[in-house]
Amino acid sequence: MSNEVEALKAQLAAIKGTPGAISPLAPTSYQTLDPVPGVTLAAGAAGVKYAGRNDVMLARVAPGASIAGVFTRSATRSAPVRWCEGALAECVGHGDGQPLVILVNSGNSNAFTGRAGDESTEALANAAAKALGTNPKRVFPASTGVIGERLPHERIVAVIDGLAASLNETAWPEAAGAIMTTDTFPKLAGARTRIDGVPVTISGFTKGSGMIAPDMATMLGYVFTDAAIAPDVLQALLNETNARSFNAITVDGDTSTSDTVLLAATGKADHALVTDAADPRIADFRAALGGVMQDLAHQIVRDGEGASKFIRIDISGAEDDRAARVIAMAIANSPLVKTAFAGEDPNWGRIVMAVGKSGEAADRDKMTIRFGDILVAEQGWVAEAYREDDGAAYMKQPELSVAVDVGIGSGASTVWTCDLTYAYVRINADYRS
Amino acid sequence: MSNEVEALKAQLAAIKGTPGAISPLAPTSYQTLDPVPGVTLAAGAAGVKYAGRNDVMLARVAPGASIAGVFTRSATRSAPVRWCEGALAECVGHGDGQPLVILVNSGNSNAFTGRAGDESTEALANAAAKALGTNPKRVFPASTGVIGERLPHERIVAVIDGLAASLNETAWPEAAGAIMTTDTFPKLAGARTRIDGVPVTISGFTKGSGMIAPDMATMLGYVFTDAAIAPDVLQALLNETNARSFNAITVDGDTSTSDTVLLAATGKADHALVTDAADPRIADFRAALGGVMQDLAHQIVRDGEGASKFIRIDISGAEDDRAARVIAMAIANSPLVKTAFAGEDPNWGRIVMAVGKSGEAADRDKMTIRFGDILVAEQGWVAEAYREDDGAAYMKQPELSVAVDVGIGSGASTVWTCDLTYAYVRINADYRS
Repeated sequence: MSNEVEALKAQLAAIKGTPGAISPLAPTSYQTLDPVPGVTLAAGAAGVKYAGRNDVMLARVAPGASIAGVFTRSATRSAPVRWCEGALAECVGHGDGQPLVILVNSGNSNAFTGRAGDESTEALANAAAKALGTNPKRVFPASTGVIGERLPHERIVAVIDGLAASLNETAWPEAAGAIMTTDTFPKLAGARTRIDGVPVTISGFTKGSGMIAPDMATMLGYVFTDAAIAPDVLQALLNETNARSFNAITVDGDTSTSDTVLLAATGKADHALVTDAADPRIADFRAALGGVMQDLAHQIVRDGEGASKFIRIDISGAEDDRAARVIAMAIANSPLVKTAFAGEDPNWGRIVMAVGKSGEAADRDKMTIRFGDILVAEQGWVAEAYREDDGAAYMKQPELSVAVDVGIGSGASTVWTCDLTYAYVRINADYRS
Repeated sequence: MSNEVEALKAQLAAIKGTPGAISPLAPTSYQTLDPVPGVTLAAGAAGVKYAGRNDVMLARVAPGASIAGVFTRSATRSAPVRWCEGALAECVGHGDGQPLVILVNSGNSNAFTGRAGDESTEALANAAAKALGTNPKRVFPASTGVIGERLPHERIVAVIDGLAASLNETAWPEAAGAIMTTDTFPKLAGARTRIDGVPVTISGFTKGSGMIAPDMATMLGYVFTDAAIAPDVLQALLNETNARSFNAITVDGDTSTSDTVLLAATGKADHALVTDAADPRIADFRAALGGVMQDLAHQIVRDGEGASKFIRIDISGAEDDRAARVIAMAIANSPLVKTAFAGEDPNWGRIVMAVGKSGEAADRDKMTIRFGDILVAEQGWVAEAYREDDGAAYMKQPELSVAVDVGIGSGASTVWTCDLTYAYVRINADYRS
């Protein structure tokens, strides 16, 4: 009898997942990030919503830095996103020698909170500016968490002086932890590279788990470097690396009201200022930055709500790169494709369906589909050598690759996604049983 | 101890749903359809894939009829869809006095089956044409079920003569049952109306449950009338009623490779031929046809895989009707919105998110959101009189309505959808535990 109870309990646990458990796709070790000269951080607990954990992160970037940003394009974006858009526009080219400040809370997104939301954002910017001796328009606030509830900003204001006093160069893990919401692990990535032979550091962190889709996700990302790069070049580098990282991932196709990625360059590294995005001196830096951005973006997918599979989707042979991206996203966001992956079912017919529904050109009779190295379909039908057992065995791996050539042109695109499991439904349906 | 076992079993059943059970949203009684003069039907078992049930439907429409059709726009549409597109183009205006034939199998969609797929379709059209004394190009085949497996058409060919011998005017329930795949109930709807004072009948049936999205769904729909309507007018009527029925529903945002809706008018009713879509004589007929089409479409949503809620989404105040439809579909297809409904969670913040991600214009500060008659949000924030308890109580009903005015213009659109439950994942993930 007790065996039956154990068996039923195990079945329930297998279906629901374990609330609070770390994602099975999490990295097995965390990277230790290098300090970035000119950048200090602190984290603390303001009790915005969560108890017993840090929920506020403060970062200070020394005067003279460049900053670049990309934001959600949601028509209902949050008050702090709107503030940041304005602050960024003012910052570019500013020469007032004041520090930049980033202030982030988790637990409440201050989105769709009407005029009160704008007031909260302004109060936070004012308090942070006062504590760190800068102009409120040099403060970049962000809030992430529940939508539509008033942000109790006074709780955050109350801890700002303490955070300012504890700013230091090494609080990367604490900063990454404080901005987590439904994340099951903190997400950090960094790199060392050179510009003109001078060593340069890149360190960054991000958060995100659900409501993840371009453009962009309920995600926040902060990347810092001591490179000396003019603001317009920095923005160009952010745009191009963002397109292949945070804008090439999807968990559920849902776009948040809060997405923000900031890239700050302190200019403390001892090389001549980079003023041209085509400058050959930044080839290595560009690659390293792209690597850090992609690493952070992949960690978000690996922490996708309920995810049990990390899936790379490569489209080739499309009309152009844009068409390839549309097809890739049609596959990545298809509930039928995502549930098939969850069930370890090599259901390539659903890939065909998703290509077809994308609205982009595809030649049914020239299409090929591969799972990893396995040729599954070609010339409009299942490949002669394909064995369902091979596909089923492949699907048991936690990291999967799907490649589709649609047989039209030379457009290509790569996106990353995860599967759709019972646990996704549990996490988001908040079943009241 | 046995109490614990019972409790755990009940918990498991609540999560997974009961495989094979009829949808809780199914109609409580089935409509008895009237015969349509000139139309005869038969159903039988060919053993294409399913055992112990009917899986083939044959319909004959007497010579002299008009026919109209709409099909999936998938780039990877199936062999029978391509055949039907060609047959329809030839039929319009044909005067060869031959009957029309519809032949449908379930269990195998004959999609992405390469040249073999075209050969199967042709073999079926030839066999049906021979049995019923018509041209193969007057045969409209359809196949629904698994993608990418060769259709064993010879099993269907073997039963065609028997089906032809048993054609009759009343086999509507059998016809609707034979074309079901993951459907949990047969879907029928009909109406009686008048043209020019002459009684006219409309009788139709449909199938569909998953892979349901415009344009259009893994759905097949067949509607018959004895009205006398010219082919171009019939096509216009089908297009306009389809836009507000089968093209206004979504279960999972996935579009199938097989979607087909045919509308046949036998012309047996004793009124003068309708040759103008603006003819005032067809006002009642147009409304009745629209009602039948919408009833059938709603039945598909009510049988959405794993559905526990039937949800109507009304958008108003959009830039134009097209924008309103995009916003409505963004809400209807959002996994976060759909899981919130599954959890009976009045999470209006996710509605805000979905409006924002649609890419269409919305004025955050003029937006209103209603759940049924409850005003939830206005002027960019939660409504003053709104109580979370009222929203939670409303969500417990099986039929829900969400209305959003986005505060920009006068565009409006209505779509219907269902929630996203554990059972959807069970049905589609084919968990191998």
